Amino acid sequence: MEISFYLPTQVRMGRNIVERSAQALAGFGKRAMLVTGRSSAVKCGAQADVTAILEKNGQTWVVFDQVMSNPTVDCVYAGAELARREGADFLIAIGGGSPMDAAKAIALLARQEIAPGDLFKGEFTGDVLPMVHIPTTAGTGSEVTQYAILTNDAAQTKTSLSGPMLFSDLALLDGKYMMGLSHRTTVNTAVDALSHVVEGMLSVKANPTTDLLAADAIRRITGNYQGLLSDTLTVEQRDELLYASMLGGAVIAQTGTTAVHSMGYSLTYFWGTDHGRANGLLMAEFAQVLLQRGYDKTREVLRLMGMDSPAAFRTWLDALLGERETITDAEVEKFSSIAIQAKNIANCPVVLTKEELAGVYRKSFGLA
Amino acid sequence: MEISFYLPTQVRMGRNIVERSAQALAGFGKRAMLVTGRSSAVKCGAQADVTAILEKNGQTWVVFDQVMSNPTVDCVYAGAELARREGADFLIAIGGGSPMDAAKAIALLARQEIAPGDLFKGEFTGDVLPMVHIPTTAGTGSEVTQYAILTNDAAQTKTSLSGPMLFSDLALLDGKYMMGLSHRTTVNTAVDALSHVVEGMLSVKANPTTDLLAADAIRRITGNYQGLLSDTLTVEQRDELLYASMLGGAVIAQTGTTAVHSMGYSLTYFWGTDHGRANGLLMAEFAQVLLQRGYDKTREVLRLMGMDSPAAFRTWLDALLGERETITDAEVEKFSSIAIQAKNIANCPVVLTKEELAGVYRKSFGLA
Repeated sequence: MEISFYLPTQVRMGRNIVERSAQALAGFGKRAMLVTGRSSAVKCGAQADVTAILEKNGQTWVVFDQVMSNPTVDCVYAGAELARREGADFLIAIGGGSPMDAAKAIALLARQEIAPGDLFKGEFTGDVLPMVHIPTTAGTGSEVTQYAILTNDAAQTKTSLSGPMLFSDLALLDGKYMMGLSHRTTVNTAVDALSHVVEGMLSVKANPTTDLLAADAIRRITGNYQGLLSDTLTVEQRDELLYASMLGGAVIAQTGTTAVHSMGYSLTYFWGTDHGRANGLLMAEFAQVLLQRGYDKTREVLRLMGMDSPAAFRTWLDALLGERETITDAEVEKFSSIAIQAKNIANCPVVLTKEELAGVYRKSFGLA
Repeated sequence: MEISFYLPTQVRMGRNIVERSAQALAGFGKRAMLVTGRSSAVKCGAQADVTAILEKNGQTWVVFDQVMSNPTVDCVYAGAELARREGADFLIAIGGGSPMDAAKAIALLARQEIAPGDLFKGEFTGDVLPMVHIPTTAGTGSEVTQYAILTNDAAQTKTSLSGPMLFSDLALLDGKYMMGLSHRTTVNTAVDALSHVVEGMLSVKANPTTDLLAADAIRRITGNYQGLLSDTLTVEQRDELLYASMLGGAVIAQTGTTAVHSMGYSLTYFWGTDHGRANGLLMAEFAQVLLQRGYDKTREVLRLMGMDSPAAFRTWLDALLGERETITDAEVEKFSSIAIQAKNIANCPVVLTKEELAGVYRKSFGLA
């Protein structure tokens, strides 16, 4: 029995959990920097909840609301510069994966001098600003991972920074912040969460603990299929998806992601495809390749989702994702060349070739 | 959906995991203090594995092997004194619950000045010596809890210190260290682990995450019943029980224990009954009281164990525990008076009266 499990983030979930965490937040210091996207943290009500508590606690704050989708290296250096200048004692990230990931890089850069060219070179250790993460989408699980995924223009893809100190100190989860999400974002983020637990179960680093968490998350996500399709999720169902998303983060914190993420990054980098959708477009054909290569655990994962084949999985995903993009031969060649060099390819349970990755791209987009 | 989960200990499990953790151990500092019982750490081979790695790493060590069963306050002060005098950078606890719990108190007292009279007064924060925990029994789960249970002579019971910094930094789990355990210790510790997950599921603080872990552990422990009965556990089955025990620790770290532990402490304090056995003697009648009080989740717990009634649970336990002790009316009165004042009574899902606790003692020991 081989187990490796590390999840140092304190997870608190419940209705109005931000308001109920005043004491925990008070312990982080006198001055916070909120790290958010342009508007979502305000729109969903989380930012007002946070600042009300900070005010009640006698804590002050500054807001860095410049995080774009798929945050850039420039963005996180700007955030770190503001955190230093403003003397922030801790960060509160409010948002989806982009603000939550950006905050981790900012926490690192606010405390350590690292040149932009060294950012993607390996694991970090040492000091970072303390962090609180409040997800406002139910997909990334970033609130409980040690990864910060940034746009890496040098490599024309997205690349993760990682290190054990990049785990957030405190994650506060409340499904009420997801009630205003668009149908599209709800679906894409749910598919992202599903990709984490499916890939986590199919990673070489999967173990009985991660499989237990992943199976629970798979049941909760697929169990909410009708609500996802019809955009009729109640706040309790939003909670369940948010919880599953957190479990997905806890899983990939141990297992890493696999080829689906490696391949999806090109769709995001070159086409601007949303990250969760990108994974969803590729997942069924990835499962098909693993089955063809004789990796039987793939059947167990399909069964947990209530499916008997990768084709059934594809049908299930198609109903959520709608019409697929088209791809050219040149793009297949380029994207598979980039994906085969990604770090997370090594987590696949069988060694995939560049040709197999190209095949997944082709079949996923109907290119014979 | 209400979740509260915190488990900052890095868990590594596998065959020869101590040898495979040289790098992780090297990061803890130059000088270790090993905290052990009189002989078990040596007999099971764990101490030799640890010192071989320390030597290879160029780390030095001192051994504090004075931890008795149900460690006393004097013992942990003596350990802290030695750690200070020897300039230990970190502690490595090797043993069952007693050395593992003692090490946490020693880690605290080596870094903070706390008077013996203040030891049981509340939660601690602040600095402690870094810790590594290596369990040599599969019962306590102490390697992943924030509790250190000590003999509290002033209150004539066992009382826990607790605090978020009392979580070990690193837990190393290998079932091979359990191969030499006596049948009695194997059974008692397995019953202890079972009590953690049963009580965890029946705690008011149970949540979907702890229930998921607890259910998995219950299945693994009850699934090894024949091997436990016949003392024929393979090393893989030992691994499974050790893993379940760790899950039990992860569960009670969130849920606390309940009346079974509160009541069992008197059996240990006054009769010297082994801790796991003490819990086992009381568990079935505790389940009976909860059912009588209409707490239906009790049936779910019984069903997970493959049982249809508390009577079946008692039969199952009796085969493991053998003949029961006898109790007097005076002892019932005294023990229930002490138990009703224990902190963990508050974790019961129904408010139990002293008379109900007395009833559990009576029925558990056949006193009409």
